[in-house]
Amino acid sequence: MYMKTTNEYRVEHDLLGKRELPVDALYGIQTLRGVENFSISRFRLDQYPLFINGLAYTKWAAAEANHQLGLLTDEQFNAIKAACEDILAGKYHDQFLVDMIQGGAGTSTNMNANEVIANIALMHMGHQPGEYEYCSPHDQVNRSQSTNDAYPTAIHIGLYASHLKMLPHLKELIASLKKKGDEFAHIIKMGRTQLEDAVPMTLGQTFHGFASILENELLHLEEAATDFLTVNLGATAIGTGICSEPGYAEKAVEALARITGWKVVLSEDWVGATSDTSCMVGYMSAMKRVAVKLSKISNDLRLLSSGPRCGLGEINLPARQPGSSIMPGKVNPVIPEVVSQVAFKVMGNELCTTMAGEAAQMELNAMEPVMAQCCFESIDLLIHAYDTLHTLCIDGITANEAKCVEEVHNSIGVVTALNPYIGYDHATAIAKKALETGQSVYKLVLEEGILTKEDLDTILNPKNMVRPVKLDIHAKG
Amino acid sequence: MYMKTTNEYRVEHDLLGKRELPVDALYGIQTLRGVENFSISRFRLDQYPLFINGLAYTKWAAAEANHQLGLLTDEQFNAIKAACEDILAGKYHDQFLVDMIQGGAGTSTNMNANEVIANIALMHMGHQPGEYEYCSPHDQVNRSQSTNDAYPTAIHIGLYASHLKMLPHLKELIASLKKKGDEFAHIIKMGRTQLEDAVPMTLGQTFHGFASILENELLHLEEAATDFLTVNLGATAIGTGICSEPGYAEKAVEALARITGWKVVLSEDWVGATSDTSCMVGYMSAMKRVAVKLSKISNDLRLLSSGPRCGLGEINLPARQPGSSIMPGKVNPVIPEVVSQVAFKVMGNELCTTMAGEAAQMELNAMEPVMAQCCFESIDLLIHAYDTLHTLCIDGITANEAKCVEEVHNSIGVVTALNPYIGYDHATAIAKKALETGQSVYKLVLEEGILTKEDLDTILNPKNMVRPVKLDIHAKG
Amino acid sequence: MYMKTTNEYRVEHDLLGKRELPVDALYGIQTLRGVENFSISRFRLDQYPLFINGLAYTKWAAAEANHQLGLLTDEQFNAIKAACEDILAGKYHDQFLVDMIQGGAGTSTNMNANEVIANIALMHMGHQPGEYEYCSPHDQVNRSQSTNDAYPTAIHIGLYASHLKMLPHLKELIASLKKKGDEFAHIIKMGRTQLEDAVPMTLGQTFHGFASILENELLHLEEAATDFLTVNLGATAIGTGICSEPGYAEKAVEALARITGWKVVLSEDWVGATSDTSCMVGYMSAMKRVAVKLSKISNDLRLLSSGPRCGLGEINLPARQPGSSIMPGKVNPVIPEVVSQVAFKVMGNELCTTMAGEAAQMELNAMEPVMAQCCFESIDLLIHAYDTLHTLCIDGITANEAKCVEEVHNSIGVVTALNPYIGYDHATAIAKKALETGQSVYKLVLEEGILTKEDLDTILNPKNMVRPVKLDIHAKG
Amino acid sequence: MYMKTTNEYRVEHDLLGKRELPVDALYGIQTLRGVENFSISRFRLDQYPLFINGLAYTKWAAAEANHQLGLLTDEQFNAIKAACEDILAGKYHDQFLVDMIQGGAGTSTNMNANEVIANIALMHMGHQPGEYEYCSPHDQVNRSQSTNDAYPTAIHIGLYASHLKMLPHLKELIASLKKKGDEFAHIIKMGRTQLEDAVPMTLGQTFHGFASILENELLHLEEAATDFLTVNLGATAIGTGICSEPGYAEKAVEALARITGWKVVLSEDWVGATSDTSCMVGYMSAMKRVAVKLSKISNDLRLLSSGPRCGLGEINLPARQPGSSIMPGKVNPVIPEVVSQVAFKVMGNELCTTMAGEAAQMELNAMEPVMAQCCFESIDLLIHAYDTLHTLCIDGITANEAKCVEEVHNSIGVVTALNPYIGYDHATAIAKKALETGQSVYKLVLEEGILTKEDLDTILNPKNMVRPVKLDIHAKG
Repeated sequence: MYMKTTNEYRVEHDLLGKRELPVDALYGIQTLRGVENFSISRFRLDQYPLFINGLAYTKWAAAEANHQLGLLTDEQFNAIKAACEDILAGKYHDQFLVDMIQGGAGTSTNMNANEVIANIALMHMGHQPGEYEYCSPHDQVNRSQSTNDAYPTAIHIGLYASHLKMLPHLKELIASLKKKGDEFAHIIKMGRTQLEDAVPMTLGQTFHGFASILENELLHLEEAATDFLTVNLGATAIGTGICSEPGYAEKAVEALARITGWKVVLSEDWVGATSDTSCMVGYMSAMKRVAVKLSKISNDLRLLSSGPRCGLGEINLPARQPGSSIMPGKVNPVIPEVVSQVAFKVMGNELCTTMAGEAAQMELNAMEPVMAQCCFESIDLLIHAYDTLHTLCIDGITANEAKCVEEVHNSIGVVTALNPYIGYDHATAIAKKALETGQSVYKLVLEEGILTKEDLDTILNPKNMVRPVKLDIHAKG
Repeated sequence: MYMKTTNEYRVEHDLLGKRELPVDALYGIQTLRGVENFSISRFRLDQYPLFINGLAYTKWAAAEANHQLGLLTDEQFNAIKAACEDILAGKYHDQFLVDMIQGGAGTSTNMNANEVIANIALMHMGHQPGEYEYCSPHDQVNRSQSTNDAYPTAIHIGLYASHLKMLPHLKELIASLKKKGDEFAHIIKMGRTQLEDAVPMTLGQTFHGFASILENELLHLEEAATDFLTVNLGATAIGTGICSEPGYAEKAVEALARITGWKVVLSEDWVGATSDTSCMVGYMSAMKRVAVKLSKISNDLRLLSSGPRCGLGEINLPARQPGSSIMPGKVNPVIPEVVSQVAFKVMGNELCTTMAGEAAQMELNAMEPVMAQCCFESIDLLIHAYDTLHTLCIDGITANEAKCVEEVHNSIGVVTALNPYIGYDHATAIAKKALETGQSVYKLVLEEGILTKEDLDTILNPKNMVRPVKLDIHAKG
Repeated sequence: MYMKTTNEYRVEHDLLGKRELPVDALYGIQTLRGVENFSISRFRLDQYPLFINGLAYTKWAAAEANHQLGLLTDEQFNAIKAACEDILAGKYHDQFLVDMIQGGAGTSTNMNANEVIANIALMHMGHQPGEYEYCSPHDQVNRSQSTNDAYPTAIHIGLYASHLKMLPHLKELIASLKKKGDEFAHIIKMGRTQLEDAVPMTLGQTFHGFASILENELLHLEEAATDFLTVNLGATAIGTGICSEPGYAEKAVEALARITGWKVVLSEDWVGATSDTSCMVGYMSAMKRVAVKLSKISNDLRLLSSGPRCGLGEINLPARQPGSSIMPGKVNPVIPEVVSQVAFKVMGNELCTTMAGEAAQMELNAMEPVMAQCCFESIDLLIHAYDTLHTLCIDGITANEAKCVEEVHNSIGVVTALNPYIGYDHATAIAKKALETGQSVYKLVLEEGILTKEDLDTILNPKNMVRPVKLDIHAKG
Repeated sequence: MYMKTTNEYRVEHDLLGKRELPVDALYGIQTLRGVENFSISRFRLDQYPLFINGLAYTKWAAAEANHQLGLLTDEQFNAIKAACEDILAGKYHDQFLVDMIQGGAGTSTNMNANEVIANIALMHMGHQPGEYEYCSPHDQVNRSQSTNDAYPTAIHIGLYASHLKMLPHLKELIASLKKKGDEFAHIIKMGRTQLEDAVPMTLGQTFHGFASILENELLHLEEAATDFLTVNLGATAIGTGICSEPGYAEKAVEALARITGWKVVLSEDWVGATSDTSCMVGYMSAMKRVAVKLSKISNDLRLLSSGPRCGLGEINLPARQPGSSIMPGKVNPVIPEVVSQVAFKVMGNELCTTMAGEAAQMELNAMEPVMAQCCFESIDLLIHAYDTLHTLCIDGITANEAKCVEEVHNSIGVVTALNPYIGYDHATAIAKKALETGQSVYKLVLEEGILTKEDLDTILNPKNMVRPVKLDIHAKG
């Protein structure tokens, strides 16, 4: 613990001059300048603890490598490590003040981290904040680093951690859909293509279908997230490794892998890697794929539950709130609606990330901060959407079994099942007649006498229409 | 008419050297280089006659100003004007060979026009193609111009012409929707919000609503298109008017206005205008607004016609083709489907245009060609979509009146009409009871005895539910 | 003032059942449900006071119309009006708790407003919060309204107010650019097209060009914002005006116009208007146009100030912070960088808004909330970007006059000015020779003897190259 | 070979009625309806031979499975197989007439293929086109299939083939960049971050960096393309496999894998797969990543070659055409410019694909056709961009070595290399002094006497600044 002294301010200086800081501030002059320069958005670093953790892991790993190379004293290293551990334990996050959307390619964020870690380290060493002669933000905490390798490395680590945090939420949603799929496995209903009546299926197949398309995304999210584990730490300012000693990069990345427990590896081409932000573009695209599917599922839930009396009405979503300020008794599909909106927001963030990614120039992409902001915001939005969707909607869905069955019996689409036995042309003629007369396919086929009642019952048995079958049928036609 | 000589080739030269051209080619060496350099897309200049016309109008207007200033001889001027008139009459479009998507900020297109016009002019003057000493692509046809003012001016003129061409197609679609709205004015049906049963309306209101939202876009298209009438002709290379005499710009724009008959005006700030492509961004955004609405209308048509037996089934779209290769008798909403796809394509083009617009650097935006391509392609797509939608779909829509009325009688939503008389809380209780018991609102209200049958009949008279009303009701509750 | 009673909770009920609320909460049960259902984003209503004002204006106007029609007592009307005035005075904003991104098409926001206003009104009437028998959120505050007209009307009013708030910030930026344009009017520099040396211009023309392209957007912003002044208040649930009396809509809109002082008008086609969110799509597109230009200007500022020694180095941006954690003395263009990022974020929000706009279905667009969120967020971002750009960057820009002039003298591009006198082909030959030999155009032309030194000096006088001129030159060639 | 009979027309019928067709047309009535219904875009099936091949492979594989199950006679099977082989040999592509952008979820394309294959097969069997009693488009060629499995399977196969076709073009571009990287390995130049002078690097590192970022995309393209190898063939109409026998799907997919030689596998969840188009969204996203990088590289090439006298001027792009219609001697970076435009077009297509992907409803996505169009168009555009970029630009780039070296000597950025020896604060002071006085870092350091000349020469040796180094330096400071 450090003691608050009687002085109210301490003075720090940088390239531009001197500034006063609260004496016990753990941030320093460059953080202050960042705060003053960037009053842009509602997103501040301290809202993204996993990003702050990413900074702490990166600085710790760099310190390990510097220590191994004799560039930090034991005392400095131990203090810096302890400072990083403090941050990873959730302490001092309120000292990370800079707007997530900032100019300077993340320099303000990197310096915010350097300054806070230096000052925590100083306290561990028994010094006061600001006594940088014992441990400086630049010469010790940022040793062998540039913003241009430390910042993207911290983003990668922070986003990979966020990815890992997100996965169980998505998996719970998938599990919820599968459970509902099992629950509804016995309910026969009409399938629809192009919103038109098609052929029968089970309601269970619908929900298992939802689960399956989301489950497929786990692979793509994983592929995209794996890119985050390749870092350019040691590339320093432009990818040439200036200010770093041979072996530093390898040691730092090895330390990062050891500390995080993840298979972190070093970029092969440092120059290429240093201006390359495509792992964020790629992960946003992976999230967009999920968003596309979330919105599709949400749309279907709204369609299937439409009504209660003038819609499809096959399922009921749990009522979450009165649906209208004017229409009494109305209950709306509010949860799928908010999920679709999250999907659109994620897609907007993906576009922002793409445009920022395209703006790289020569050895750096100065637009990284907004890309990171979009990624972290989108992961948060998706986590909330996953949880909201399954706990407030999917888990409570019930089926209108009678209506589902009735629509199958009433449909013309079942004529499709006759194709293999009477041919497409003949089936078309029956379908046309059914449509024009309002009669049932079943009755029309019997009247024509082209299939025995027994054969027809076999073919039109719902169980024989929801999977491939080989039936013993002898069409007369 | 010019005569084909016995020589097969003529030789032209430019900064890079000499090249052979077919002796009767009306294009020249720079067109040839453009063709060789840009083998990129399926979009060639000669697919966009209104763009070629824009080039002809621009060159003609410039020639008028140059002539007035004594910079062209009478003979040269008359020949250039005649050449432009030939092109405007539809001749020689096959000489415009360059890919619409090209580097060089349109120089290849501008030079293609300069070369073709020079050679047609030469023929009018009794010379052979390539005898540029009498009328040169640069010193006469391009006199006082740069690609950087002539090319965007031609785009503006070409796009404004395309806008004018598009309008009647959109208006015919609107008229078709209105006619259908009148035809369906007497049909009562349920309105739906959030896909849930809401309150009654007429099917006519639905179609008039469609017409109205499209009609509102006429203003926005007009506002956006008006921007095209501001041109930077005379600004030359970078907006300083270098190589042009005082008064040239004003004369050229005056001529352009006179020749086209449109209120063409000169940009106020030439430097700002020369790198500014926002009128294309703006017009694409205006088309996007229309696209958003086309897709909404298409979605609604699909929803309302869904079925035939297991959907909403309120309307029938005309059958255009068998709907399925496997499901006999299925008829799909293929026209609204293709219209939505056009809408998405337009939105994609809008993004491309935006990104290209953002890429302007200093005194020019080198990405103009792809922006022009997107605009011209999108206008074509929309024209086809308008025509297809109204002739192959809207005009032939029929209504299932009985089903529409039945759903109103059967609905709970009509309880809303009771709000003013019995209050929201009371109405909610009735709605809830109707939902739980499956009974009709009408019967439940009568049972409760809170309104006389006469009053209830008045309130629930459909005609009293589809517009604001003041009824003489005395609720007992 | 109301007194806190000894009871800690009060009980409210709705369609779904009963819930306890803090006894002095001014929000009610539906707000509570909204908060519980939508834990999605970091954007809450109380962050957008102008939206809350929009709700207050709308409710006040509706109350006026209801009062005129005898549907509210004098006491109720005065209390509701007083409540709205309280909110407009900035009070009670902390009671607007719902997430901006919500399902239910804004019902939670509308009910949040209804509940808070009802409870404030109750206090004005001498009652306790929750004593809705005297003034109910539904039957009095929401009288003659639906979420589906009140919510979009409030958004329109809130966004129009935000637009008005934004304008002076943009105008200050424009004024700052103009001032800099005047300051730099005498400095000759090279213009560049396609990043290649083109022809001379003044640095003042650059900055006036920046100002002019932004100034042009004032019209487009105004056109887009004007759409917000058309509202569907009185259309109620689906555009049929159900639950409202004849004349109500007109009276309510007249009141809204009177109270706000703006030319608010009623939509012509209510059904079309009620599902139509294109004014938000349109305003986002207008903001996108501005964003495209802000990014272009930011890019140019970075290009022109690149260096200090190995770049273009024509201007100096004020140093805002040390530019690098590793490169001492580096100063980066951090302000233009953050402005470009804001531009990308706005473009992402525009996409989100477009996609949400496309998702309208039948009589409503349930995705309005995220559209409103995107609009309000984007206006805030742009205000911050305008202010940041001009106060922290533009105002402090200085020019490197000597370097600017030197590059003109050293350039080949000045050969362009010779076109009218020696022809393009001849000028091309000189340019080619200059490029190959490294010699100056001036010297080469003199050597060729095609122009007298006097004529050449006249033509290449910078003042004669930055505007259209007619010079008395007699080329010998 | 079949003989043209004397009759000019044959008559075919479908659900909607009868139509005449040219007697020797190999397409049938449904193709005709498709052509009549969809006159939308400039993109027709016959422009995409690999898509037509995908249809042929799919139909062949289905025929194999049907034959194995006894559902086709030997004669029918052999004729269908021969027809598919004809098409794969490039014959009859002119019979594929339908617009790529179509309603009906691809039914017109699927039927176009069914009809053409049936008629070719009939000719192989010695019959006339239209004698479908021997081999019908529906009952034989489309046997056990629906558009909803055959069409997406054909798209997958066609796009995978296109992917394979694209790869070598991209690899050649990468090889070209690497070769240039080797050629320029010895040239020292300044690196730049945020467009500001940073620290030294080699020009070779720049080009190897370009190659590396593109090379990384090979993995992502491959991952995305692999998704195409999972097909839903056998899922038929909605994923239930209706009209197919048990084992059919497995046999058909096995045949498809065997015929194509690719690891084609069957989707696990057929219902989920049938409405899922995310592999197209994913592949478009992968192409977008490439596009982002192509545009970045193009931007850098323009920046590095800017000039010739007032820009960075480190490299020269080969002159491809005169750069200006007004500025003699100007040569512009036309190839990088067109490549950036392709990148924007691809991004627009990605957005279109995403929006279409989001529009899936229940058991199908009717928007597949425009997604396929976007994918095929984008692959073509990229192939042209790769080829154009490396053959017309990269291969001919030369370096201005003297200028590159001079800028390093002249720079302040080299002060960074002193950090490890004199500390960041001290280095900052020197940088500041250099900036203010215009003096060189080298001279200032020597004057201060903090490093010996020998040490300073060692540190500032360019070879020691472009990679991590450990130098034997003993700072005095």
